[in-house]
Amino acid sequence: MFFFSQFNQLIIMNKNIDTKKIIISNPLKLDCGKEINNFPIAYETYGELNSEKSNAILVFHALTGDQYVSGKNPITNKDGWWSYVVGENKPIDTNKFFVICANVIGGCMGSYGPSTINESTSEQIGTDFPIITINDMVNAQYELIKYLEIEKLFAVVGGSMGGMQVLQFVANFPDIAKLAIPIACTSSHSAQNIAFNELGRQAIMADSKWENGFYSNYKLNPDKGLAVARMAAHITYLSEKGLQEKFGRKLQDRDSLRYGFEADFQIESYLRYQGSVFVDRFDANSYLYITRAMDYFDLSKQYKGNLSDAFKKTKTKFFVISFTSDWLYPTSENREIVIALNSIGADVGFVEIESDKGHDSFLLDVPSFLKTLGDYINSTYKIINERRI
Amino acid sequence: MFFFSQFNQLIIMNKNIDTKKIIISNPLKLDCGKEINNFPIAYETYGELNSEKSNAILVFHALTGDQYVSGKNPITNKDGWWSYVVGENKPIDTNKFFVICANVIGGCMGSYGPSTINESTSEQIGTDFPIITINDMVNAQYELIKYLEIEKLFAVVGGSMGGMQVLQFVANFPDIAKLAIPIACTSSHSAQNIAFNELGRQAIMADSKWENGFYSNYKLNPDKGLAVARMAAHITYLSEKGLQEKFGRKLQDRDSLRYGFEADFQIESYLRYQGSVFVDRFDANSYLYITRAMDYFDLSKQYKGNLSDAFKKTKTKFFVISFTSDWLYPTSENREIVIALNSIGADVGFVEIESDKGHDSFLLDVPSFLKTLGDYINSTYKIINERRI
Repeated sequence: MFFFSQFNQLIIMNKNIDTKKIIISNPLKLDCGKEINNFPIAYETYGELNSEKSNAILVFHALTGDQYVSGKNPITNKDGWWSYVVGENKPIDTNKFFVICANVIGGCMGSYGPSTINESTSEQIGTDFPIITINDMVNAQYELIKYLEIEKLFAVVGGSMGGMQVLQFVANFPDIAKLAIPIACTSSHSAQNIAFNELGRQAIMADSKWENGFYSNYKLNPDKGLAVARMAAHITYLSEKGLQEKFGRKLQDRDSLRYGFEADFQIESYLRYQGSVFVDRFDANSYLYITRAMDYFDLSKQYKGNLSDAFKKTKTKFFVISFTSDWLYPTSENREIVIALNSIGADVGFVEIESDKGHDSFLLDVPSFLKTLGDYINSTYKIINERRI
Repeated sequence: MFFFSQFNQLIIMNKNIDTKKIIISNPLKLDCGKEINNFPIAYETYGELNSEKSNAILVFHALTGDQYVSGKNPITNKDGWWSYVVGENKPIDTNKFFVICANVIGGCMGSYGPSTINESTSEQIGTDFPIITINDMVNAQYELIKYLEIEKLFAVVGGSMGGMQVLQFVANFPDIAKLAIPIACTSSHSAQNIAFNELGRQAIMADSKWENGFYSNYKLNPDKGLAVARMAAHITYLSEKGLQEKFGRKLQDRDSLRYGFEADFQIESYLRYQGSVFVDRFDANSYLYITRAMDYFDLSKQYKGNLSDAFKKTKTKFFVISFTSDWLYPTSENREIVIALNSIGADVGFVEIESDKGHDSFLLDVPSFLKTLGDYINSTYKIINERRI
């Protein structure tokens, strides 16, 4: 389905993905200095917007996520990435809430990104795509909210890079969201975060089929490099303990070592599988651009080193969630957000969920997380509605 | 310099590296089932063997180490990898001790490995080289000790993979070493350890110039893949805190972001540098083989799941050293070795050194480590000598 906003002039087309889509005609000034306009934002919605337009929740996706939060993802034919959280009778209950999720700009699921086709050349934009930031992503999604004619969001929610977007959204638009839930995230990428992302980028760029980002012109795909990048990232998504408990030194479909370079161990087989399925659904250039946006993210620096100042103008209620075994965005980094909010007397709740599943906990069936998140959202919604009455 | 043992028949030649070298004529049965003979072991020695032959210390090197423990490494023209530990008036004082270090088999500094030239084809052996294990490495080095006509070693010492060799050496040859010092190591590779090594191997094999390991036949070098592998490993050698303190989000020679994929951050520049200098000194196939040996290492499994049994026959005195910020081989894994030794009443000391420098601590100027190691070695040497008198 395609929805076009008024007055747009369609200069770029995305590959054919079955999704809702609008073209943003308002010029968007990017942090890099360039300006984009007439660009597509692909999105999905779940549930119904109520007559008061008071039940909308904007969900932000993570690095390799997309707009298919719940239900079947038409590309992978698997459940949406947050099916444990969003859906009928789920913590974010689509019987009650109107959930919106947009593919970030820089992504590869229909929003403006390096795999967008330039109509004049019929080729992908590739690395002619401008560098984008978390700030740019959020500003683009604000255009979608305006297009949907929603003045107030009940909540903005997201994990990992989605959490960074939550923070940036509230900083940029302090009057829009009543509730903000950043999960398993950070207010700025650490040296180790940057290091792992750079590793992934180098793996992609090392692939001779990358062709400086113009691989589509040559009908090539740097899939081996992208798979290595994914493998590296995957290690960071799981905890050491979780890996040891799940895989340990178990062999894959065999009783003894093969004395070769095949995947003898289950963990090897698992990583190779994760790499191979990823390249079927994700664009290598998008991986470069989105990781770059994450590395550039430093909300404190945007406010001259004072993270609290990012939230000074907002009355948004915050609920920060971290996981004990997340070593990518550990509790200590989530706590910095809480401390910044506390220092200005903001309304902020904070919980560290016990889980062995590492950073991936926010995507998985972690009952205490799902219950905590659901209870908080639903009780807050009730309180806000009661106040209004 | 080349030294050949008696009765050898030289069938293989290594590239021309200035090092001491012997050819092992005794057949060595490998764990993979194959047998090798007439193969070279390259090594270096430091200090003088005393008349009683009681002052010899065998040092085992780590994954990317070599025989150049101290002094200048003729390949890199930099200091030997353990110059903080081994040398005149250093913790392992070469005025007092005779230090031996051999390049492991599988390596690329003159010992039998995938870059060894097969004389009949004049090409590198490449992936025709057999899979080797830590056990094989240690058995090959035992041949060197015999060649040097040393019956008793005062000590066997090594960090990381060197520590694994220490453990395996004592298990295999319980009567040879009086003192064993495994540092920052493990008795078996964890799932996360295997995952990082597999990531490195996949990066190498993803390089189109790898050519299934026969790159030298095509005058190619999978240097980009090897650089990515090195970058991945390097992240695991440093602690999150150490990275943050050293690099944080500091930019490289600039005041503002470039909005591109160049190395804006110092950490990116550092990793790229580490990758680029590594490929000048290390062979991609050796990286595959040695990481495989590490992944296969499981001393407990060799003894039917009872690690203590590996040490039942020895009276060797042990000193186990770990580092607080080492997340590659954390203290918990080193402690398992201590527990196994304690359970059979072995003579074992254990210290966890406070350091922010991560796994790399054993290679760096960490004064408390250097003092602890030196004091232990020297006082033990004194006690053993006094006993003999």
